[in-house]
Amino acid sequence: MDTLAAYKEHLREIGKLESALALLQWDQRTNLPRKGHPARAEVIGKLTKMAFEMSVSDKLGQYLDDLQGQEGLTEEERASVRAVGKSYRRHKAIPPAFYEEYAIAAAHSESAWEEAKEKSNFSSFQPHLARMIDYARKFAEYYGYEDSPYDALIEEYEPGMTSAQLSTIIEPLRGELVPFIKRLLQDGKRPDDTFMQGEFPEEMQRTLSSRALAAMGYDFDAGRLDQTVHPFTTTIGPNDVRVTTRFLPHDILSGLASSMHEGGHALYDQGIRDDLRWSGLDEGASYGIHESQSRMWENLVGRSRPFWKFFAPIAGEVVPQLSSVSTEKLYRAANIAEPSLVRVEADEVTYNLHIMLRFELEEGLITGRIHTADLPELWRDAMQRYLGIVPEDDAHGVLQDVHWSAGLFGYFPSYMLGNLYSAQFFATARKEIPDLDEKIAQGNLKELLSWLRENIHQYGKMYEPKELIERVTGEAPDSSYFVRYIVDKYSDVYSLH
Amino acid sequence: MDTLAAYKEHLREIGKLESALALLQWDQRTNLPRKGHPARAEVIGKLTKMAFEMSVSDKLGQYLDDLQGQEGLTEEERASVRAVGKSYRRHKAIPPAFYEEYAIAAAHSESAWEEAKEKSNFSSFQPHLARMIDYARKFAEYYGYEDSPYDALIEEYEPGMTSAQLSTIIEPLRGELVPFIKRLLQDGKRPDDTFMQGEFPEEMQRTLSSRALAAMGYDFDAGRLDQTVHPFTTTIGPNDVRVTTRFLPHDILSGLASSMHEGGHALYDQGIRDDLRWSGLDEGASYGIHESQSRMWENLVGRSRPFWKFFAPIAGEVVPQLSSVSTEKLYRAANIAEPSLVRVEADEVTYNLHIMLRFELEEGLITGRIHTADLPELWRDAMQRYLGIVPEDDAHGVLQDVHWSAGLFGYFPSYMLGNLYSAQFFATARKEIPDLDEKIAQGNLKELLSWLRENIHQYGKMYEPKELIERVTGEAPDSSYFVRYIVDKYSDVYSLH
Repeated sequence: MDTLAAYKEHLREIGKLESALALLQWDQRTNLPRKGHPARAEVIGKLTKMAFEMSVSDKLGQYLDDLQGQEGLTEEERASVRAVGKSYRRHKAIPPAFYEEYAIAAAHSESAWEEAKEKSNFSSFQPHLARMIDYARKFAEYYGYEDSPYDALIEEYEPGMTSAQLSTIIEPLRGELVPFIKRLLQDGKRPDDTFMQGEFPEEMQRTLSSRALAAMGYDFDAGRLDQTVHPFTTTIGPNDVRVTTRFLPHDILSGLASSMHEGGHALYDQGIRDDLRWSGLDEGASYGIHESQSRMWENLVGRSRPFWKFFAPIAGEVVPQLSSVSTEKLYRAANIAEPSLVRVEADEVTYNLHIMLRFELEEGLITGRIHTADLPELWRDAMQRYLGIVPEDDAHGVLQDVHWSAGLFGYFPSYMLGNLYSAQFFATARKEIPDLDEKIAQGNLKELLSWLRENIHQYGKMYEPKELIERVTGEAPDSSYFVRYIVDKYSDVYSLH
Repeated sequence: MDTLAAYKEHLREIGKLESALALLQWDQRTNLPRKGHPARAEVIGKLTKMAFEMSVSDKLGQYLDDLQGQEGLTEEERASVRAVGKSYRRHKAIPPAFYEEYAIAAAHSESAWEEAKEKSNFSSFQPHLARMIDYARKFAEYYGYEDSPYDALIEEYEPGMTSAQLSTIIEPLRGELVPFIKRLLQDGKRPDDTFMQGEFPEEMQRTLSSRALAAMGYDFDAGRLDQTVHPFTTTIGPNDVRVTTRFLPHDILSGLASSMHEGGHALYDQGIRDDLRWSGLDEGASYGIHESQSRMWENLVGRSRPFWKFFAPIAGEVVPQLSSVSTEKLYRAANIAEPSLVRVEADEVTYNLHIMLRFELEEGLITGRIHTADLPELWRDAMQRYLGIVPEDDAHGVLQDVHWSAGLFGYFPSYMLGNLYSAQFFATARKEIPDLDEKIAQGNLKELLSWLRENIHQYGKMYEPKELIERVTGEAPDSSYFVRYIVDKYSDVYSLH
């Protein structure tokens, strides 16, 4: 077997282990009986270790060295060597003993966070957080960076992005959004949504979500829809991309949005080209690009007037109390913006402000500008400045997210980038697909999906985010698309003049 | 680490891989989307290979050698070395290349069987069957045997059992059962079950099964109930023992019996002692002993008069049309015996005859006394002799079971042994638990479960079947308990005098 074939075989073997792992984890969050958790943790631990060892093996290192300069590779093969090589070097940079130490500390930290959140007691979590920050800094040192240690961490989620670039994106965005939200609340007319009140049985919500996913083009023969506490999407393997969602008994729109969001992630993974399977390229270009797909389907499609023209009769059929509500009223009720304390419940207007706040704080924590002891106070300050509201306790403030407790610093910005990218991609789709709004209003969502497949999904991880965006839109990443989208839409919905 | 600790650690590592495998297979049969099957097969293939390699590794062989004569082992440790050593030697006896060749041929054979069954065309399957028989004979040669090559195959499912012993069990059993069934049909009064006709929604059937499982003492915090086409029970890992069942829309008793049967298997696995987990002893003593637990709960409990005294009100509550039916009528309707063509649909009176027929034929095939070409005819003959009915096509005759197509010879007898053992165990339980019938009638099934845990479940695979039966009942395996149980019960239900 030549090196290239051996390299591909090695990646397939890793892919198979990761497939088993993905199933073990999916099952853990959907089906696993309560008492089965301790043993499951051990099984996951073992397979993770095996997959990790294969991903940093000397054999793989040798293949990568040999293939680096090899002539005659296809574009896909070169991209694979580049992407796998990058992750190989990052993994190799971390001493195994250090990683294990961190993993144990992170597990303790997550438990401590859970308890601290429950009791809204930041101080019991503080020492764990401080430890996680120390680990993150050491990771950054191991990975290496040019300007800021934070850059080494973002790289994991958004290759090529830096702290400095994020600042230049955020400043003008904040400059537009903060005053716009103020105006919206002062001068705008909040849509009526009283007709949305009610109790919605699980089966009804499941039907509604399934209808939406089917319309989006989600392939149920290559996936499934299940329920969980914290919704997620996972690729178990080729042709097995599973969506999970959450239904709130009194909020029918929340479950629908959650399903469409996760469905957007799933369409991305279902659309990756077959020849990239188990090649190291069979995932999204980045967390931000992935989030652009979920946010596009959730918001730019799922909360649009054309979508509700199509979907209102379906909603009325599935949810009797909505059958006599006008399309326009449904559309407006799906677009209510108001400052809220919790990120995961935020609307699309205020969402990015939650992220800016987190970026500011975590960047400060990693660079040492901010101390953990000051965090609750700084959180409240920023909430006041950005959204004009302040949490009454830390459970709804600094303790609300799991990320930091697990040492995941640099992750949050990808949520914001997803929003920004989604608007830019959608603007291009609008230009390139004739009568897109009209098509969506007719329930023809396939044209948009084809466009996304053609331009984004099929490539998996072949291109880095910036390159992909430029290929697709012909421009550098540009947050003004998002601002224009938000201002136009909400000025209309809230009757601002 | 000393040898004993290293040995235990090795078994734990195999156990973790097998846990991942069990989940991959459970998911394949309950959740996997249609298009995900090819990739799943590859993932299962890889993990199977890894687990197999560990189970025949030289390292394990060395541990076993070292521990064989070692002083100071506990009884459990000695049993583990014995059981693991036995399976090690059996696995080692098979050349890997031969096994791979067989596995591929078996996969083809199973597909051919599926098609042949669909078209009821035995001749298209015959060459595959002939090949599977050849492989089985070669397996027997590799394993080694004293009297009959068939003995080397039964050993896999019922350690210590032989073809000669089976014949001595079967002959008197057949001598009693065949004439009894004739009398039952001629002189007996078939119970009325017209009130059982109807259409029973899935949710209703699921509720009924869940109530029965809960009453049996199945721990839903260490398992779950799902639906599948061919019901099975699987242990994914410690405290994760899952039941699957099948609901027929027009037959409420079938789904209930299936759930109680699988629940019986699950109680066994849930009851194995914690210190035997991942020790090579954390499974049933044999297929026959395992089946004794499923058949006991399905038949000796689930089709008993005391059980229906307890369960009739529950059935009436869950299934409205049964609410006005008397306990006695329900009990009798659950005990209808009639000759039928298909084993998996057979009642407890005729079931063993289906197995005797299969034993006769497969033993003849392996020893060369019977040729595949004559099989359909021999099948019809035996059906006529045993049950007085003859299948119109091979789909309902020789092609009905999957086992032979996969090369599983020697498996069928364990179904019969399960029936026999169950009656013998239950007779002992009746002696040792005061007022057992009364307790069951009050819905107190826990006493029976405690007795089974204490005497059978906790030991897992520590004892071979014969030894276990003697420990529990104080006697050698004895089929007369089963005959007495059947004759007494059905003479009553069918009003034979």
